[in-house]
Amino acid sequence: MTTSHQLSIVDMGIDTHQEPVVYMRSDCHICRSEGFTANNRVTLRYGENCVIATLNVVEGQLLAPDTAGLSKIAMHRLGAIEGQKLTVSHAPVVTSLSSVRKKVFGNKLSDIEIAVIIKDISTHRYSDIEIASFLSVCAGGRLDVDEIIGLTQAMVACGQRLSWPGQVMILDKHCIGGLPGNRTTPLVVSIISAAGLVIPKTSSRAITSPAGTADTMEALTTVNLDLADIRRVVEKTNACLAWGGAMNLSPADDMLIRIERALDLDGEGQLIASVLSKKIAAGSTHAVIDIPVGPTAKVRSSKEAERLASLFTHVGAACGIHIRCLITDGSQPVGLGIGPVQEARDVLSVLQGDANAPQDLRERALFLAAHLFSLSFQESYEQGIERATAILDEGKAWQQFQHIVKAQGGIKPLPEARYQHTEVVPGTCRLTSIDNRKLARLAKLAGAPASLAAGLRLHVKVGDVLTEGAPLFTLFSDSEGERDYALAYYREQVTLFMFNQQ
Amino acid sequence: MTTSHQLSIVDMGIDTHQEPVVYMRSDCHICRSEGFTANNRVTLRYGENCVIATLNVVEGQLLAPDTAGLSKIAMHRLGAIEGQKLTVSHAPVVTSLSSVRKKVFGNKLSDIEIAVIIKDISTHRYSDIEIASFLSVCAGGRLDVDEIIGLTQAMVACGQRLSWPGQVMILDKHCIGGLPGNRTTPLVVSIISAAGLVIPKTSSRAITSPAGTADTMEALTTVNLDLADIRRVVEKTNACLAWGGAMNLSPADDMLIRIERALDLDGEGQLIASVLSKKIAAGSTHAVIDIPVGPTAKVRSSKEAERLASLFTHVGAACGIHIRCLITDGSQPVGLGIGPVQEARDVLSVLQGDANAPQDLRERALFLAAHLFSLSFQESYEQGIERATAILDEGKAWQQFQHIVKAQGGIKPLPEARYQHTEVVPGTCRLTSIDNRKLARLAKLAGAPASLAAGLRLHVKVGDVLTEGAPLFTLFSDSEGERDYALAYYREQVTLFMFNQQ
Repeated sequence: MTTSHQLSIVDMGIDTHQEPVVYMRSDCHICRSEGFTANNRVTLRYGENCVIATLNVVEGQLLAPDTAGLSKIAMHRLGAIEGQKLTVSHAPVVTSLSSVRKKVFGNKLSDIEIAVIIKDISTHRYSDIEIASFLSVCAGGRLDVDEIIGLTQAMVACGQRLSWPGQVMILDKHCIGGLPGNRTTPLVVSIISAAGLVIPKTSSRAITSPAGTADTMEALTTVNLDLADIRRVVEKTNACLAWGGAMNLSPADDMLIRIERALDLDGEGQLIASVLSKKIAAGSTHAVIDIPVGPTAKVRSSKEAERLASLFTHVGAACGIHIRCLITDGSQPVGLGIGPVQEARDVLSVLQGDANAPQDLRERALFLAAHLFSLSFQESYEQGIERATAILDEGKAWQQFQHIVKAQGGIKPLPEARYQHTEVVPGTCRLTSIDNRKLARLAKLAGAPASLAAGLRLHVKVGDVLTEGAPLFTLFSDSEGERDYALAYYREQVTLFMFNQQ
Repeated sequence: MTTSHQLSIVDMGIDTHQEPVVYMRSDCHICRSEGFTANNRVTLRYGENCVIATLNVVEGQLLAPDTAGLSKIAMHRLGAIEGQKLTVSHAPVVTSLSSVRKKVFGNKLSDIEIAVIIKDISTHRYSDIEIASFLSVCAGGRLDVDEIIGLTQAMVACGQRLSWPGQVMILDKHCIGGLPGNRTTPLVVSIISAAGLVIPKTSSRAITSPAGTADTMEALTTVNLDLADIRRVVEKTNACLAWGGAMNLSPADDMLIRIERALDLDGEGQLIASVLSKKIAAGSTHAVIDIPVGPTAKVRSSKEAERLASLFTHVGAACGIHIRCLITDGSQPVGLGIGPVQEARDVLSVLQGDANAPQDLRERALFLAAHLFSLSFQESYEQGIERATAILDEGKAWQQFQHIVKAQGGIKPLPEARYQHTEVVPGTCRLTSIDNRKLARLAKLAGAPASLAAGLRLHVKVGDVLTEGAPLFTLFSDSEGERDYALAYYREQVTLFMFNQQ
């Protein structure tokens, strides 16, 4: 029966994101004999490899008889070669879905139930709608502390895990996100490692923002390091500033985040497990978590921030990692540049002690570094800030940054954008607010982060009193289309910058 | 800006079920300038028509430059023609998703919030994962009675609604499902309408079962009636036995059921709203609901059945429809035939008073008809059963059935299956149980309901004492492949029939 269920593979080149899709003709013998219809879940076998995929049924001439098309992720996961044979059969019953239904019915899940769900998700046994169902019934405060601990440990268990022999303390920092420009990581890592502490920092690329730390660092040096490279750089410099995406530290998290984002669901349990599982898998022992609070930031009230902070600390302790949460001002962007190159310029100007360097970015980085020192050396915040400021002001952080970048492959010159356009202030006024989300979208429409040089540079901060015709921001883009599209968006967004007439 | 966002339409012929998908080249100017990536939600505009679709990004040669491929449902909803221009832009924010998030956070939804969600779902503004999220947080008893009433009324509001001028009472019957063969509808409708009562019955085709009432009736006559046909048949005969699928009575329900089924989630609130909204939209005033209970039926415990019955009655009353729920034996199939033609044979044999007609099917139909009489004429069940039995035994139901079928287009001869195979009893024993679900799957693997003649006929009922070599069931199929595949499945299912050795 098995051999009769074979079709020749066609690479469709279709990106269905993470969900494997198989395209089969409605008149093919397998669809007919199995009674398969669109959206059925099926098992694809190719040699030793096997994935569960969603079926799309094709009518007409898109596929030749006796062939099956595969989406990009299905090709990739199977390691398939065009023209080779694929076996298609009914998908097995995924028994952990009964635990999801248990959660639908409001019951608490055990550590083992959570572990099996996460294992099945990480091995791609869940469809997107099944993941959406799981996330939805876990959000809204429906995971208790035990369940969040279980979820964190389950996520660690199904990925790779780093260890750092000979090191007692491994530091990390993380920002919950939502503030454009807030590029403190390269500064904090340079300050902390300049003091001899180990901080092997891996960061993400932008997902919904105009730049992630990995994008900003990519404008300056190589970030696509494998595990051996990371070890070598850390041995040499006590730190790294690498992209974490290739390391498979929390494969389940990647599956969950994608659906969470599509649903615009920020389940706190999921958020905590996501952040902490990656820290634990990376071998971190101590971390500070920056939680910016503001009306257009990710976290919008102090109450929410305090609840998050308490859960982070509690779950971290249960999983053996020391967490200090810092609730910070999230009312406006930090720094002046937004987009990889523009943020890199801010970082460099702070490191180099440039007189025009954005003071808010400098202060935010010193504040975070001071708390990491306080945590590591068991000293007061005041001692920490003194230590951090000295390292930065004496140029040791800048030296250390160059040391790290050199170990990662050397510094690259920052590219210039092909098009620049400066918007001016409409009349004499005081700037009362900036909408973080809309500003981020403006920078993205200009082409960030795909074009490293694209983005924008603010010439103002909230509270500034401005005269008519003074520069408000400069937009950078690599194509006329992107520039025009971004400016058209800007002209429609009357609440992006809010002014009080003076 | 709008005209530059156009591409030429290509009909991909891909059935993505209900979710519209647009296929766009990764290097097309729209993906680049909008920053679109796989799984983004986009708005497709074609002339006056507009749908929200999910983006799949194509690399390679599947699409020519400046073209966009559309899935079948996207072509259909847009009424698109190949080669014409399509405009693609960011999907609008669907504001009712904030109500879904409110429900995620455990808050009660108002009637208006529910109405907007259902309206948005019925007009295809939700992605599948968004529908999955909504269903998941409404299941598990998380909708209270008010919310179920709101959901029912919202579903009625967004579809067509029938009225029957001059009729005070419009009857209906519904079975929650899960029992193979249980084809009481044609019998009940014939008995009830023979007594002069109006019962314009529309039924569904099989979704997960080997036959729906519409499939069984399709083996006998025309069921694909439009509204004018239904009115004409009902005026002539007081009844019809039509397929309800073309009538658009509850478009939101169609969207929800599809995802519910994929998640294997039977949210009771959703179930009640689904059933009652269709009855109310069809203009029904009185209905009996058959709730079979058994270990392999849809409802597995009396407690669950009683809770459902209470909610059905309560919500029905609030929506102005009289509901009587009947909790029945769901431990084994009803009747002997399974699959459209085989079930039609059982129905005909009961109507014709055949001595070999399955008694359990006859009794179940009389029981349901008696309750409808009791509800309509405000008489006792005993009076109802007397009335129903007389109508059936005097041949009036059979006359009435022929009358209805004639009005729908006349009777068709039942086709014979090309292949028949009879399994025999392994040894002298007593049959102790039949697994409804596995039996249904066996009939489906044989080709039911796509092949009307496919399915199976039981030669035994639970409790029968059987001798070695006696016939157990006969399998009907139209291809050798389906026969072999079904029999291979049967040989693996040791718990499909359970025997006690005698």
